[in-house]
Amino acid sequence: PHLCAAQWHLEPQPPQTAVFLCLSYTQMYGRYTQELGVYAKEEAARLRDGGVRDGGGLRRSTSVRSRAADLLEYEKDPCAKCQLCASRCQKFLISRVGEDWIFLILLGLLMALVSWVMDYAIAFCQEAQKWMYAGLDSNLLLQYIAWVTYPVVLITFSAGFTQILSPQAVGSGIPEMKTILRGVVLKEYLTFKTFVAKVIGLTCALGSGMPLGKEGPFVHVASLCAALLSKFMAALFGGIFMNELRNTEMLSAACAVGVGCCFAAPIGGVLFSIEVTSTFFAVRNYWRGFFAATFSAFIFRVLAVWNKEEETITALFKTRFRLDFPFDLQELPAFAILGIACGFGGALFVYLNRLIVECMRKQKTINKFLLRKRLVFPALVTLLISTLTFPPGFGQFMAGQLTQHESLVALFDNRTWCRQGVAEEFDYISHHHAWKHPQVNVFITLILFIIMKFWMSAVATTMPVPCGAFMPVFLIGAAFGRLVGEIMATMFPDGIHADGSVYPIVPGGYAVVGAAALSGAVTHTVSTAVIVFELTGQISHILPVMIAVILANAVAQSLQPSLYDSIIRIKKLPYLPELGMGHHEKYNIRVEDIMVRDVRFITLNSSYRDLQEMLLTGQLKTLALVESRESMILLGSIERLQLQSLLSLQLGRQRRLEYLRQLAQDNGTQDHLPSLTTDSTPSSPCTHTHSNTSTNTNARQAVRFLVSTQQIAEWEEQQLDEPVDFKNCKIDPAPFQLVEQTSLHKTHTIFSLLGLDHAYVTSMGRLVGVVSLKELRKAIEGSVTVTGVKVRPPLASFRDCGNSTSVSEVTELHKLCIRHRGLSLPREPNPPDARLFCQYNIFFF
Amino acid sequence: PHLCAAQWHLEPQPPQTAVFLCLSYTQMYGRYTQELGVYAKEEAARLRDGGVRDGGGLRRSTSVRSRAADLLEYEKDPCAKCQLCASRCQKFLISRVGEDWIFLILLGLLMALVSWVMDYAIAFCQEAQKWMYAGLDSNLLLQYIAWVTYPVVLITFSAGFTQILSPQAVGSGIPEMKTILRGVVLKEYLTFKTFVAKVIGLTCALGSGMPLGKEGPFVHVASLCAALLSKFMAALFGGIFMNELRNTEMLSAACAVGVGCCFAAPIGGVLFSIEVTSTFFAVRNYWRGFFAATFSAFIFRVLAVWNKEEETITALFKTRFRLDFPFDLQELPAFAILGIACGFGGALFVYLNRLIVECMRKQKTINKFLLRKRLVFPALVTLLISTLTFPPGFGQFMAGQLTQHESLVALFDNRTWCRQGVAEEFDYISHHHAWKHPQVNVFITLILFIIMKFWMSAVATTMPVPCGAFMPVFLIGAAFGRLVGEIMATMFPDGIHADGSVYPIVPGGYAVVGAAALSGAVTHTVSTAVIVFELTGQISHILPVMIAVILANAVAQSLQPSLYDSIIRIKKLPYLPELGMGHHEKYNIRVEDIMVRDVRFITLNSSYRDLQEMLLTGQLKTLALVESRESMILLGSIERLQLQSLLSLQLGRQRRLEYLRQLAQDNGTQDHLPSLTTDSTPSSPCTHTHSNTSTNTNARQAVRFLVSTQQIAEWEEQQLDEPVDFKNCKIDPAPFQLVEQTSLHKTHTIFSLLGLDHAYVTSMGRLVGVVSLKELRKAIEGSVTVTGVKVRPPLASFRDCGNSTSVSEVTELHKLCIRHRGLSLPREPNPPDARLFCQYNIFFF
Repeated sequence: PHLCAAQWHLEPQPPQTAVFLCLSYTQMYGRYTQELGVYAKEEAARLRDGGVRDGGGLRRSTSVRSRAADLLEYEKDPCAKCQLCASRCQKFLISRVGEDWIFLILLGLLMALVSWVMDYAIAFCQEAQKWMYAGLDSNLLLQYIAWVTYPVVLITFSAGFTQILSPQAVGSGIPEMKTILRGVVLKEYLTFKTFVAKVIGLTCALGSGMPLGKEGPFVHVASLCAALLSKFMAALFGGIFMNELRNTEMLSAACAVGVGCCFAAPIGGVLFSIEVTSTFFAVRNYWRGFFAATFSAFIFRVLAVWNKEEETITALFKTRFRLDFPFDLQELPAFAILGIACGFGGALFVYLNRLIVECMRKQKTINKFLLRKRLVFPALVTLLISTLTFPPGFGQFMAGQLTQHESLVALFDNRTWCRQGVAEEFDYISHHHAWKHPQVNVFITLILFIIMKFWMSAVATTMPVPCGAFMPVFLIGAAFGRLVGEIMATMFPDGIHADGSVYPIVPGGYAVVGAAALSGAVTHTVSTAVIVFELTGQISHILPVMIAVILANAVAQSLQPSLYDSIIRIKKLPYLPELGMGHHEKYNIRVEDIMVRDVRFITLNSSYRDLQEMLLTGQLKTLALVESRESMILLGSIERLQLQSLLSLQLGRQRRLEYLRQLAQDNGTQDHLPSLTTDSTPSSPCTHTHSNTSTNTNARQAVRFLVSTQQIAEWEEQQLDEPVDFKNCKIDPAPFQLVEQTSLHKTHTIFSLLGLDHAYVTSMGRLVGVVSLKELRKAIEGSVTVTGVKVRPPLASFRDCGNSTSVSEVTELHKLCIRHRGLSLPREPNPPDARLFCQYNIFFF
Repeated sequence: PHLCAAQWHLEPQPPQTAVFLCLSYTQMYGRYTQELGVYAKEEAARLRDGGVRDGGGLRRSTSVRSRAADLLEYEKDPCAKCQLCASRCQKFLISRVGEDWIFLILLGLLMALVSWVMDYAIAFCQEAQKWMYAGLDSNLLLQYIAWVTYPVVLITFSAGFTQILSPQAVGSGIPEMKTILRGVVLKEYLTFKTFVAKVIGLTCALGSGMPLGKEGPFVHVASLCAALLSKFMAALFGGIFMNELRNTEMLSAACAVGVGCCFAAPIGGVLFSIEVTSTFFAVRNYWRGFFAATFSAFIFRVLAVWNKEEETITALFKTRFRLDFPFDLQELPAFAILGIACGFGGALFVYLNRLIVECMRKQKTINKFLLRKRLVFPALVTLLISTLTFPPGFGQFMAGQLTQHESLVALFDNRTWCRQGVAEEFDYISHHHAWKHPQVNVFITLILFIIMKFWMSAVATTMPVPCGAFMPVFLIGAAFGRLVGEIMATMFPDGIHADGSVYPIVPGGYAVVGAAALSGAVTHTVSTAVIVFELTGQISHILPVMIAVILANAVAQSLQPSLYDSIIRIKKLPYLPELGMGHHEKYNIRVEDIMVRDVRFITLNSSYRDLQEMLLTGQLKTLALVESRESMILLGSIERLQLQSLLSLQLGRQRRLEYLRQLAQDNGTQDHLPSLTTDSTPSSPCTHTHSNTSTNTNARQAVRFLVSTQQIAEWEEQQLDEPVDFKNCKIDPAPFQLVEQTSLHKTHTIFSLLGLDHAYVTSMGRLVGVVSLKELRKAIEGSVTVTGVKVRPPLASFRDCGNSTSVSEVTELHKLCIRHRGLSLPREPNPPDARLFCQYNIFFF
């Protein structure tokens, strides 16, 4: 046995010394270390009083510390926190009015400021590029280098910065928020580091002029803001700001704020965030979102007025369509066709985006290269895109020098380009040469613009920088709508209306409709219609927009999942997929077909040894408590942590101390080592050290007190054989129960309604199985593949991607995900998973 | 013992004869009669074959029939159907795409037609009144009589018609839909009769020109449409149209359609219906609502174009505010004040409306008179209102001759009345003399209009006709906003803007804001903002509208419940009130404080006698099944009906027949009556008749076979002592369970999420109590009163009204409610209720 207590005299930092105490237990389960930390401090204080110093322990203790830190890290692991999901119902608790309002106002204010400052910075970046480009007009090569270098530097910086500071900041953020709002805790996802990385990374990414959006990241930024504000207010005031449930409610409001202050569209923001993040929405949260989003949008626009950018508060992309006759009834078929085309386009975009990611993953050489040189991919993509948009080059045919904002303003213009020409009406934005080309007519420019932007956006959004896809898609939709509108205007130069008065067709209206339809198709939302009204400040095209959006959604939903669901699948986030409509076979699958029959349970008369075994072998977050092995009547469920503390209570410091004290009393000296018990199986070779703290003056003696491993082992064995005392254990007496006959559909509904993580399956009170989110997810995905229903196979289209075992991943978040899995793996390489998969194979194939 | 089997020979209608069989059982519980009916038919067919006739039985059998009918009626009772709530989760089942779309299109089409035809009829009615009034301008008295008689006749007809055809059609309909969507089945509420009564009644009521709205009733009409369409399609195609759950989903879509096609406001309609009817909203239903509402609004507006009323599809109340500078930033405080004032006004309106109903109820003499002469009240109210609005009389000071539509168009006008005068700009609606009075200026007219319309609307909406309050409130809000706008325009004749350009204030914008704010305050919704944008076709005032609506809501919600919640409380509909915000004391109340500890349960070894007793004494819809009286471990719950059929199986026809057949075999002749068993306690005096049907040819002999009551009674007793065989019984093996420590808040959330009716309270698997909706409701209401929290006491303000025991009710729906209670009373006068109340007193006072 290794004895190190004698070295304590030289230890200069006593606080860490006591961490030694039960190394064997920290190896076994994580939680013990925390308690040890507390103990260590107490002990250290006592030792300091006694003037006890130890030198050699330092090295050891730090290694132990790092180990303990690892284990504590594990405790913070999202998977370990999944027990939160189980008690998600509690999340609807407590909402105190006053504090809420203050919080929401602060959140709105903060986000409006962030949004405005970011917009300002982005505009400045883009102006700088323009200025550089314009200043070098004598030399084309220099001009090209300036045009290209600028975005490459910005994007590379953005990618590198986020990479170093917080890889979680990469990408949109909506898929992750969806997962978080589902009740899963994603590690490191709502920290200050991520906030800084996201804000700065996003500013640089957007400043580069690449086809990227700010909407998705803004949802994440707002959530970060809300989470940090909660923490800050909790630190300041304590109380309800500590409340986990309240924070979830605030997060859902924050999502609305994110969209709201990004577009100055409060109503659309609230609706979009509901559609995108929720399955079941608590109407009482509606309020919070509306209030915060309105306040935020208000401040955002007030800042613009204050900065003399605007005369008063108006829409971001104000349109000036005529009010008296916005469109003719006979134009509606054209709008409907536009909607359907946008539906196909949206599905294609999602497919293309996924295809790019998958291609890069599957190509091992590319993959390895990209993983090694992380900044090469974004730099290359940026170089390609900026080369193609170089205005004197190919960019002249696709309005390359216009920023997203300028393009949108032009596309929403209320005059007809093909008839009235482009040049005249663009005096107010001074980019009249952008869409007008001496050799090429406006249709070709528009078509090129659409095609180029389409693949550029799909590629650009896969870059590992903070970026969204909403705005690029919105822009492409607007361009497509404008194209259709211009074609209509050419076909019917005097409008369609038959009566005397001539109402020419307004291609700008088509642009609005197209923008809403395409962005609706990509995100599978209807609320883009509302966003478009708020963005343009006109609601006159409400019916065409609604019709197009609904048709686009109908088409896109039948072909592909939404972009966010697609990313969720790519990143393999722990999310319960939606049940597709019209999957009738779901009703034939019952819980008994998918449940795990080999439930890990403990009985009322289990011994501590059973408990230990259970904890060592299983990795479920909660264990079922049944009356007895024979009756199997479910009495409740106990969290893993509870069991761990039960076990540590039985074998822990206090009991150990008592035992040792008794031992000491029995012997008096350290040399005498009596064998107490009969049983003497050797335990694992580990160090048991002990510091008797009965009196301060005794400390020195106690530290020098050595106990043989054998004696401790014997005592341990004895303790383990005792039956478990559940008195001090928190038992959830009513875990959620299902019946064997419960249909998959119903199970899905209950799981999403209550945000469950798992549910026990009982038959007349007897525990017969358990179903967790994992089983459910697999069942939903599996069943679709087999029957091959065509109605809405979004999940089916993903199955192979889900099963593909690519060695490594491009996106950082996926790596995060893997790390989580890695942390839970050491215990046991996921046996229920494999078993389950076989079960599915039997069942589904 | 009374023997009547010998009389069967003369019976001309054999089908009813067998109803005799077990009179004692029909007395005991209702369901038996249905089975008896089936049996009666079979038996009758056999008897007819045998040529058996009986005369004396006819009279008796009809009386039995009416009794059986009563009992069957009880079975249809909504309260009896509350077991549906328990399995509400199932309601989220099955959604087949194709059929859904067809259904929604049909629904939208139908509702658009109904809405348009109704608008047309209403316009015609109002035109007719105008024409009559104008034609008689020579004689003021005749003119007055014409002006007054017309609405009185219409309203009286409307009240009488709905009274006779379907009293359920009275009132708004939103409160009832809210209750129905909560899972409670309201009897007769979704029938064809109600549809006819509602549509015709509403048309007449609105045609009268009274300050009534069509929005609330339209929600009801759309739901009726959906329910009837479902029934129709179920009859035609069967299958999923029979699905209860699907119908609920369709009802929630129908609510959106109702609002959508009433205002041609699809987005606002969807949001309004969500806010008004749901607590937790399934985002997947969002879709259906959007689709159907858009389609409906589209068709509704297309019909207007087709009828040459409009040139193209535009908003209903199109405004023409300037787009470039809709309002100044410095006007925002005025908008905020307008919002706050509207908040107070909205609360006052709800209070006034309730006060009127309560006054009429409490005044016994008025109450009695009104109940006897139901049509007098509406006639009197109409007379009063139409007298006051008589244009040459007082009406000249309050724009009396304008209809709601005309007033709204005028109020939303984009020019300033006070500065530019009223006369000039009203040329396009030809009612320029309405707001302009030679002696009185426009402010006085507006103030009088607001005050008069305010109380008129509050009174008019209490009339027993189909009517809503949204439109009148909207109109008052618009007038109030216009007043504030005109005052602002007078104070700042050149606008507030400091810079060179002059932007005069737009009072029409204030009218829009006021309309949204007041209607939002009365209904406690934010979506009135969206409705207002869709109604006016302009979204330029989005920020003022949002700010005013949010402020108005904040004020109104802290003072009064919403109008719909108010009506729910007045009509005493079975609805779970919302937990107010900021009720901290809710967290201190636990389930153990409110649960009923005296749970009715059956054990695995209960005898049939226990079962019988349980059924006779209790009236719970489900009974708990526990392992044994000692262990009390909850195994599941059994529906009352299941137990009844178990009992009837044990004592029923089949067993009885077997016993008698055996008896007959043992004896051979009818004179010999052997005593079979040892036990011979006399049973209650009842008639036991029997017809042996073993062979057709034996019928005559069998009928004449008489069995002594004593023997039957003995056999019964013997049967009752046997232990229950649960083999053929459907047991819900996982009823919803709570724990004693569950907080009231959490309980409320779970109940509203899952639409539960009751939940068992268990402690480590042992059944310790039960909580039902009733207890929960009382706890929520009770707790507020005691602590007197000021933050949001909507429920507290109602408690006395809830407890007031007025002898009779004015509104018909309340009577319906009482009838329900009356039907469940005969069994036992609600003992748990009384007991619980005491419990509350102890707990809360």
